[in-house]
Amino acid sequence: MDFTEKTIKSEMIFKGRIINLRLDTVHLPNGAQSTREIVEHPGGVGIIPINEKNEVLMVRQFRKPVEDICLEIPAGKLNYGEDPYACGLRELEEETGYKAKKVESLGSFYSTPGFSNEVLYLYMATGLYKGELKPDEDEFVEVEAIPLETLYEMVMKGDIRDAKSIIAILKAYQLMKSPLDK
Amino acid sequence: MDFTEKTIKSEMIFKGRIINLRLDTVHLPNGAQSTREIVEHPGGVGIIPINEKNEVLMVRQFRKPVEDICLEIPAGKLNYGEDPYACGLRELEEETGYKAKKVESLGSFYSTPGFSNEVLYLYMATGLYKGELKPDEDEFVEVEAIPLETLYEMVMKGDIRDAKSIIAILKAYQLMKSPLDK
Repeated sequence: MDFTEKTIKSEMIFKGRIINLRLDTVHLPNGAQSTREIVEHPGGVGIIPINEKNEVLMVRQFRKPVEDICLEIPAGKLNYGEDPYACGLRELEEETGYKAKKVESLGSFYSTPGFSNEVLYLYMATGLYKGELKPDEDEFVEVEAIPLETLYEMVMKGDIRDAKSIIAILKAYQLMKSPLDK
Repeated sequence: MDFTEKTIKSEMIFKGRIINLRLDTVHLPNGAQSTREIVEHPGGVGIIPINEKNEVLMVRQFRKPVEDICLEIPAGKLNYGEDPYACGLRELEEETGYKAKKVESLGSFYSTPGFSNEVLYLYMATGLYKGELKPDEDEFVEVEAIPLETLYEMVMKGDIRDAKSIIAILKAYQLMKSPLDK
């Protein structure tokens, strides 16, 4: 069965600093028409930095949309055309003041494919060494080193609420402990 | 340090069928002003149904925003004021045709707290039994039973791309195997 929804009409409702809002009229597989509300986003990168004590450098920041202070992995949005890997290294240094000798991909995912095209790329950084702290002008973050094991337990109890951070922690935890299992 | 961003002005740009778009002007912690583009969403529920063979009933559906066919756990958006637990059971039956004897919470999370207030509630359903299939009018899904172990490997390789499905699979996998570890 072909599920594809063909676009009949596309209307740009809003062009913002970070997101755009688009309204697509589509042909459904059954021939009927519907509209899809689509938030365009340039995509982003999250990077989980793990130090030699197996602690993760997490950032705490206020997130206006949810009116909540979130504990998250360092992250930032992609500039259009920017390489996700380069973006991850930049955000890591800007937000935590550290650079990394080793950076591995943890894959990418759609944050909420029902209404946005946002793709998030995840990396794991190890072999950390001092760089230069330089937060964005309208960004206020606090850095905190927390054992990966503790973060894993926090995720399983529901105490970490940001999707990209949950995924990065669960994947990194698996990767760091699996060598011990074998 | 108080990170809170106080709203000075709030402007509704668009009210849609599923999402609204709001523009907030805020006071930053350093006294400067900035704007925040915020997508309001009623929230949603994802439910991972696991049968007696340790297979998960997954749904395949086209997602217009990402122009991609995604393999996801059954899910749906909350009606305003609806209980997430009730919503999960409803979506499970509508999309897969099954009901469940046992439903456990896997917590909740923010899909993308940088630009949306969407909260997703996750549940794990076991003790499945036949109910009635009744998909939404503009929803076209295919159901597929896939071993949880296979899904876990797909997640680790990056072959599952939807955030809520990744989180539900990783959490369910941990919960299903941890009794064996002890």
